[in-house]
Amino acid sequence: MEIGLIGIGKMGYNLTLNLLSKGYTTVIYDIDKEKLKGLDKKGAIFAESIQDLVSKLNKTRKIFLLLPAGEPTNNVINELVKYLDENDIIIDGGNSHYKDSIAKYEMLKRLNINFLDCGISGGVSGALNGICAMVGGDKDVFETCEKIFKDISVEDGYLYTGRAGSGHFCKMVHNAIEYGMMQSIAEGFEMLYKSEFDFKLDKVAKVWNHGSVIRSWLIELLYDALSKDNKLTNIKGIMKSTGEAQWAVETALEKGIPVPIIALSLFMRYRSLENDTFSGKIVAVLRNQFGGHELYYL
Amino acid sequence: MEIGLIGIGKMGYNLTLNLLSKGYTTVIYDIDKEKLKGLDKKGAIFAESIQDLVSKLNKTRKIFLLLPAGEPTNNVINELVKYLDENDIIIDGGNSHYKDSIAKYEMLKRLNINFLDCGISGGVSGALNGICAMVGGDKDVFETCEKIFKDISVEDGYLYTGRAGSGHFCKMVHNAIEYGMMQSIAEGFEMLYKSEFDFKLDKVAKVWNHGSVIRSWLIELLYDALSKDNKLTNIKGIMKSTGEAQWAVETALEKGIPVPIIALSLFMRYRSLENDTFSGKIVAVLRNQFGGHELYYL
Repeated sequence: MEIGLIGIGKMGYNLTLNLLSKGYTTVIYDIDKEKLKGLDKKGAIFAESIQDLVSKLNKTRKIFLLLPAGEPTNNVINELVKYLDENDIIIDGGNSHYKDSIAKYEMLKRLNINFLDCGISGGVSGALNGICAMVGGDKDVFETCEKIFKDISVEDGYLYTGRAGSGHFCKMVHNAIEYGMMQSIAEGFEMLYKSEFDFKLDKVAKVWNHGSVIRSWLIELLYDALSKDNKLTNIKGIMKSTGEAQWAVETALEKGIPVPIIALSLFMRYRSLENDTFSGKIVAVLRNQFGGHELYYL
Repeated sequence: MEIGLIGIGKMGYNLTLNLLSKGYTTVIYDIDKEKLKGLDKKGAIFAESIQDLVSKLNKTRKIFLLLPAGEPTNNVINELVKYLDENDIIIDGGNSHYKDSIAKYEMLKRLNINFLDCGISGGVSGALNGICAMVGGDKDVFETCEKIFKDISVEDGYLYTGRAGSGHFCKMVHNAIEYGMMQSIAEGFEMLYKSEFDFKLDKVAKVWNHGSVIRSWLIELLYDALSKDNKLTNIKGIMKSTGEAQWAVETALEKGIPVPIIALSLFMRYRSLENDTFSGKIVAVLRNQFGGHELYYL
């Protein structure tokens, strides 16, 4: 089977290898040619442009996008539609906002081009060895592509989630859950770290992955990291975020759904980006005013 | 090898079966004889009293307690010490407070009786098929019992965590992490449930367990529950708690460790126990006073 892939970042690179290993004729394009390096030797066909990529694929085309959400994805789709034929299929494998995906589905529908929104989890290693895919869109279009999703996922690792937008919605919620799980794990390890005992944090992570209630891939990843440096001495506790937990909280606000843990986990990430806070200064001056409590100066 | 077991609840029952399957001579006692039913046919030796249990074991005795934390555990230990000989070993496998375990260790030390605090995770099925054990106490005493911990745990599922109290501290933190993970998972599933899409929640849980970043035993358990009733129609969202997350938050307060997610997850459990709240009434009257917003009457 043939497939086109646009966006050869870390995920796209490994997904290309994954597809090639499954015998797909894989035509790939990235605006930065450097990113493609080495993939020709693995059998990938390089396209010079988006138009070239389209011309190198037979109908009905299936084109997988693995681009940053927002403008990069939008721009590529806007260009793609100039060259695509009716019934061709665009699969957005990026972390797009589910509302954007619904809008794209509708816009493309009017051009008789099909669109699937595919949330992908599993990280960079998953892209290579098998992802978890959550796919929204028309069911018959999903079925046309089902073999692809089956081939690039771990066993039982793909799901048709329902109509357009549901794949990216599902992925958004997945990531939101991930934020809360990670923050909870993190707080627990901080308690161990600051306790009066002398816990070997990697050993605790390891034992918790064997038979405990909280065993999970996240704690497996943590074991890997802690076994290299038990006290994480060389890194800062800066926790950046991509958009999805923010969108999840915004969505929860729109719908009036209480998600305190998810929201607070996101806010803790924002907090981690600042060495000092203005809110801290506010509390400090108030305590000073009413109680004469000490102020600390820069 | 011989072992005594006191407290034949759900955990104790399955742990007895686990020990018997590994060839242990297992002497068991529970204040409620009904609890022992059927275990004689599996090979367990019944004791009539705590004194009888002690008399049925040879020195150096190893006695595993699987009792509710606090008074039940304290009472049994206070009686046990009347009959035990020097160097006998008490293993507290309950969810005791780590400070109580330190105090017990010290009290028993003065009587030349050994004490290990053993946090156990894995639930009722784990007790049968293999637990995750976190064991604190004197290292040589741990080593005397190591074969037991190895035999009743899953592979790599036991850890010597350090000096007395560290086993129960580790278990306390484990449970605290569990609270945050569960609340985060729960909020995510509430978002799916209340979304405009028609997610099959069991199928989402299933796919997330195959290749996603949040794959975990908790989501496997959730899949089992949701596959029986996708909308959990017949149960209430009442979330009770045992003591350990509370102790974790108290410990964090003592030490000045910020654990907002763990604390809030615990508070959300408290919130779930009330149909209405007094704080809600307070906000309602304030909104009414300054803005004339409507009040709702009983």
